Amino acid sequence: MVTRIHPEPALPADLTAITSDAYRQVKDRLREVITRLGEAGRLRLPSEAELSAALGVSRATLRSALQSLQKEGRIRRLHGHGTFINRHALGLGANLAEAGAFLDLLAEAGHEASVSTADQRVVALEADVATSLEIRAGEQALRIERVFAASGEPAVHSVDHFPAPLLGENPRVLEPAQSTFEFVERHLGPPVCYSVAEVRPVLPPPEVAAALKIPAAQPLLRLRHTHIRADEQPVAVTVAHVNDEYLRFSVIRTYLDE
Amino acid sequence: MVTRIHPEPALPADLTAITSDAYRQVKDRLREVITRLGEAGRLRLPSEAELSAALGVSRATLRSALQSLQKEGRIRRLHGHGTFINRHALGLGANLAEAGAFLDLLAEAGHEASVSTADQRVVALEADVATSLEIRAGEQALRIERVFAASGEPAVHSVDHFPAPLLGENPRVLEPAQSTFEFVERHLGPPVCYSVAEVRPVLPPPEVAAALKIPAAQPLLRLRHTHIRADEQPVAVTVAHVNDEYLRFSVIRTYLDE
Repeated sequence: MVTRIHPEPALPADLTAITSDAYRQVKDRLREVITRLGEAGRLRLPSEAELSAALGVSRATLRSALQSLQKEGRIRRLHGHGTFINRHALGLGANLAEAGAFLDLLAEAGHEASVSTADQRVVALEADVATSLEIRAGEQALRIERVFAASGEPAVHSVDHFPAPLLGENPRVLEPAQSTFEFVERHLGPPVCYSVAEVRPVLPPPEVAAALKIPAAQPLLRLRHTHIRADEQPVAVTVAHVNDEYLRFSVIRTYLDE
Repeated sequence: MVTRIHPEPALPADLTAITSDAYRQVKDRLREVITRLGEAGRLRLPSEAELSAALGVSRATLRSALQSLQKEGRIRRLHGHGTFINRHALGLGANLAEAGAFLDLLAEAGHEASVSTADQRVVALEADVATSLEIRAGEQALRIERVFAASGEPAVHSVDHFPAPLLGENPRVLEPAQSTFEFVERHLGPPVCYSVAEVRPVLPPPEVAAALKIPAAQPLLRLRHTHIRADEQPVAVTVAHVNDEYLRFSVIRTYLDE
């Protein structure tokens, strides 16, 4: 067992390299390669050397992108055999384990996606959200309510809470942005690093049923996210209700890992 | 872009090394280390050299276990800074992206878990399941229906379909095992490698409401898995209805990767 424990290090503040557009582009291009190979029935990826040469990126960048795709369940590595495409994950739509703003997810699902900010105000935090944000109940938070539409039809209802003390003097007038992630990047410094999401089947609360124009008896997927910055500071809680006629989630559960 | 494409290689049949108990034990012990460090507020992991020495395993085995935990969202690597525990993922219960038989998930959620086989018979496949199994509709399949209980209360209802031609002469009398995974390992050769699961909120079909002893208006989480072997052969479709009073799923969505 481990007996030595390191003293708590400072977490790095600057994550520019990791969030760079270049890295995202590499990952997107690698996705394309995987789709194309997979559709052709070629399930083993070329070597790292070949891929990095073909994509014109360093081995380190390529390896990061590969690890990320492995984490999402798109590919798997088999020791001594190479890296393989998970063929049955090829056509998968919205992946619960992947990053994704609702606007992008709806667009990827083939809809004309739009978002409107239904409400933006400062409120006193209720206990459960305050606990997730690690601040005291009753403290002020900025609450942003959004409705995401698929070709004009309301598809997703979301409510964000951001701790007001992190947002300067007048949070109510801040530009609401198109997603929680964009809001955090614009107004809260370092971007969201990971989110913990509770996944529940629920009947819609009355205000959600009204906003989504659905009957009270229609079950929805309720995703309650706590968004965490790279410095482990929770910066937002988002409760989203998803009408799965418009957006259906999947997840790839992996059992064998290298 | 990639222009060269490898010829289709044979997929390895023997995955003993990856599925070995030793590997699972390393991962379990690493989980313990992470929990203990995290609870003590120490979020940076010791170096690979220190960890492999402390756990008495090779660097290669350690690295595999670390990658697997990274994939599940438990830890993250920050280039040039080390490997960090995702603190807010520490207390997380059933992780939708992780492996897990319902019996284990219910036990981990603190219940006294049990399973009963409600029915086992050979049926003709309906079109949607046949498509997932990549065989023709109307072909025969073994159907196993199970109810998983939490301290005696029915909590999860599941129906497996396995292609009968893969199961020998008389599939109806095969030992049903305690989970889909155990059944596959025992009767279908190589174990399940990954599963693609569709996640939906639904109202229970009448037979499920009866089996779970719940009202028809109570929404359930419906997980429809297609289980894939390492050789990319789909070997089972499992439709599970989960009463989330007993088992609540979360997922860790990661945005920044090394």
